[in-house]
Amino acid sequence: MTANLEPLRARLEELSDLDSAGSLLEWDHQTMMPVSGGAARAHSLATLRQVRHERFISADTGRLLEGAAAELDGADPDSDEASMVRVVSRRWEKARRVPAQLAAEMTHAGAEGHDAWVQARARSDYAAFAPYLQRNIDLARRYVECFDWFDCAYDALLDDYDPGMRTAVAARLLNELRGELLPLIHTLVEHSDRVDPSCLHGDFPVARQRRLVEDVLAMMSFDRRAWRMDDTVHPFEISIGAGDTRITTRWDESFLPMGLYGAMHECGHGLYEAGIPDALKRTTLGNGESLSLHESQSRMWENMVGRSREFCGVLAPRVGELFGLKVDADTLYRAVNRVAPSLIRVEADEATYGLHIVMRFELEQDLIEGRLAVADLPEAWNARFKEYLTIDVPDDAHGVLQDVHWASGTIGYFPTYALGNLIAGHLWERAHDEMPDLEEHIAAGELMPLREWLRDRIHRHGGKFTSAEVMERVVGGPVLVTPFVDYLKRKLSGVYGIEL
Amino acid sequence: MTANLEPLRARLEELSDLDSAGSLLEWDHQTMMPVSGGAARAHSLATLRQVRHERFISADTGRLLEGAAAELDGADPDSDEASMVRVVSRRWEKARRVPAQLAAEMTHAGAEGHDAWVQARARSDYAAFAPYLQRNIDLARRYVECFDWFDCAYDALLDDYDPGMRTAVAARLLNELRGELLPLIHTLVEHSDRVDPSCLHGDFPVARQRRLVEDVLAMMSFDRRAWRMDDTVHPFEISIGAGDTRITTRWDESFLPMGLYGAMHECGHGLYEAGIPDALKRTTLGNGESLSLHESQSRMWENMVGRSREFCGVLAPRVGELFGLKVDADTLYRAVNRVAPSLIRVEADEATYGLHIVMRFELEQDLIEGRLAVADLPEAWNARFKEYLTIDVPDDAHGVLQDVHWASGTIGYFPTYALGNLIAGHLWERAHDEMPDLEEHIAAGELMPLREWLRDRIHRHGGKFTSAEVMERVVGGPVLVTPFVDYLKRKLSGVYGIEL
Repeated sequence: MTANLEPLRARLEELSDLDSAGSLLEWDHQTMMPVSGGAARAHSLATLRQVRHERFISADTGRLLEGAAAELDGADPDSDEASMVRVVSRRWEKARRVPAQLAAEMTHAGAEGHDAWVQARARSDYAAFAPYLQRNIDLARRYVECFDWFDCAYDALLDDYDPGMRTAVAARLLNELRGELLPLIHTLVEHSDRVDPSCLHGDFPVARQRRLVEDVLAMMSFDRRAWRMDDTVHPFEISIGAGDTRITTRWDESFLPMGLYGAMHECGHGLYEAGIPDALKRTTLGNGESLSLHESQSRMWENMVGRSREFCGVLAPRVGELFGLKVDADTLYRAVNRVAPSLIRVEADEATYGLHIVMRFELEQDLIEGRLAVADLPEAWNARFKEYLTIDVPDDAHGVLQDVHWASGTIGYFPTYALGNLIAGHLWERAHDEMPDLEEHIAAGELMPLREWLRDRIHRHGGKFTSAEVMERVVGGPVLVTPFVDYLKRKLSGVYGIEL
Repeated sequence: MTANLEPLRARLEELSDLDSAGSLLEWDHQTMMPVSGGAARAHSLATLRQVRHERFISADTGRLLEGAAAELDGADPDSDEASMVRVVSRRWEKARRVPAQLAAEMTHAGAEGHDAWVQARARSDYAAFAPYLQRNIDLARRYVECFDWFDCAYDALLDDYDPGMRTAVAARLLNELRGELLPLIHTLVEHSDRVDPSCLHGDFPVARQRRLVEDVLAMMSFDRRAWRMDDTVHPFEISIGAGDTRITTRWDESFLPMGLYGAMHECGHGLYEAGIPDALKRTTLGNGESLSLHESQSRMWENMVGRSREFCGVLAPRVGELFGLKVDADTLYRAVNRVAPSLIRVEADEATYGLHIVMRFELEQDLIEGRLAVADLPEAWNARFKEYLTIDVPDDAHGVLQDVHWASGTIGYFPTYALGNLIAGHLWERAHDEMPDLEEHIAAGELMPLREWLRDRIHRHGGKFTSAEVMERVVGGPVLVTPFVDYLKRKLSGVYGIEL
């Protein structure tokens, strides 16, 4: 009965182990590695990925998948085994079209692009970075050509980060979101004097910020025996394997939210990974499959929990004590929810954030479909930024060079941030419906009920389901713009004291 | 002409890349990893090693090696290419006898053994550790059985750490060393009141020790762009790849030499790795092949440089300034060279150190040859310790559980420490012959002339030559006990003011 399933499982364990090693190489690359180790690291990571890729796409894997599917005929399609075979078959069909050489080139170019980006951003030197971006675009185009069942080039890329999501669907949602956000932000900017953000600016020594963050992360169940937090240039979360979840953050000594909310965001990702059952670890379903779903977790913790009136009541006395400030919960609440167009995506407020994403989504489609040349990107960036966010970009470091994604060859990833917000809107609504005392818990600093709810609804499935499948299960329908926009309007109406 | 050499090179690059990844997993395991990640890490490392092993031992690699050897017929045997084929062929002949499954089991057991050891040592609980040691011994025996050309089981293990070295030769050298050290130490213990070590004991805050160590490592050419230093339980050095050398250390706030000399020791290893030319990196000859040679470097920097009268003249004012001490160079020099039997190998002085090694060498031969049961090891350890070092072992944490080696499955490694001292004796003598102003340089804190000399004589060869081949090149003969013992007697005669 398990002539194929057992060897398939062993093969997937092996692939998971290689993925673990790759994750560690990436984590180290961005946190610990001495700078001159970059070239060797690019080689090492590329080889590791190539070996992984070759083993995955072998005909042998295909035969095992086919045989295991036959063995599982009649099994519950939601079972771990049936899901494993279904999801891995889908990935295998995609991966086997990609020559191992191309996969290795993409990995290698991504690692080199990352290092070139770090240097280019420091000097705001787009010209030095452009060849690396061009190579990543060229490689992405070659990658796209490996498939013949997508409607457009961008579909093939987006599908890697949110399986089953299509460009047309994402574009419809993000256009609608843009249509809602532009007038909303316009109104709030007109009333910007109603919210005073000055309590967030001041002198916040990193050592004390760490204590605040450690307190908050402890409420979120960060545990030193199974987690790490380190400093980096561009914060991220990565799960190395069972019992080993790593988050990174960066600090701004004159602006409090950077470190705090960055850490809550990454911890939200980490809770997803850490909440996936051990039985799914080493099956290649041991990570969240959809980055939109992933982002729904991180942004819910960062914004819906972290910037809630209830949690500001938990934060305010701690902030006061640690930094010698007099700040009441209401003032803090209004300050951390202030809407103001700004240059840097990861520092953007909850409303303007969506526009940062929409413009990247539009620009990367233009790049990949050949409607925009790499050389013309900064100009296009700055123009789109002015149009949506009404401000002039002073230099490329604060513009097109601010994000790591394109540098690492990650194209098609950005929309998942906005889709994540939309999913979070649904989940937040549903969590309130099902947990009437949710706000009281948060006000008391008790974050475990929400974590348990999310674990049950989302985390425990690991990579078994697509975002659409999860949405169907949890909210009974597809993702919509309304719940998120309603949440935002309700919150900001209160913060600004105006009807939105 | 290069129908085999070029693909062989590509294969070796791939193996080097996988080795790099493995090195990073090991480094992380012992420095950064959250403790609950241990089980996943053991899997990941084992799979990585198994994949590496399978690719290395394939018949394909054998054909490439054979073909490349033919292509290089008539080439200078010392050339990079000829050396590569010669050394890799030797390793291939050995590795291909080892089933991939066994290799993976050994890696897995070593990683698990390491974690069990950390916990067992903390609780001084040998019984909890014994099953892991038993498994490592059993696996080592199965490993030994893969070969039919060694005279004894221990030969096959020792050959992994010092290729070409044989048990009989090592035993002759270490017996002679023991014969020299026992009476020497006996005499010095009788005169122990002649050296006052009290300046080394006191209050040495870690932050200030770090500054001292950073100063000293800078003199040794530690460069943050290419090196890291981190804290760990059991210090080690590891080279991840070109431009990425990592050392680790541990600190004792009440005893100065632990951190300082530990760091100089590991930096000595690092200088070897960092001194290997880029042309040899990614050929699998990019690391030192013989651990005896490796140890000759680390112990030379730690003891012959770091504990020299000249370097103590560099250290004393810095130590005085950092820790608010009044200590003159002569007092410091005598203190750091005091000979006194003590429990912990890595804290032992230069003379008793050899006896720590001799007893481990003897005990691990007994274990592997089946003359000693794992259950009886603590008793045997304590008896041998009493015999050689005259003190009673109070508990296993300070006895048989103090070292990581056996826990990690590293059996046959210990003699390389003592052989390294002997080689260092030769090199130190030769360096003085060839650089008459060496002592003046060291007294001025100028350590680069020695590093350059070592780089030219040793480092630049990477893994091309065995320790015997290097000795033949540099000193024109085999390793002897005399140079090291003469150096030690000369130094200690001065320190103690007695004729030795």
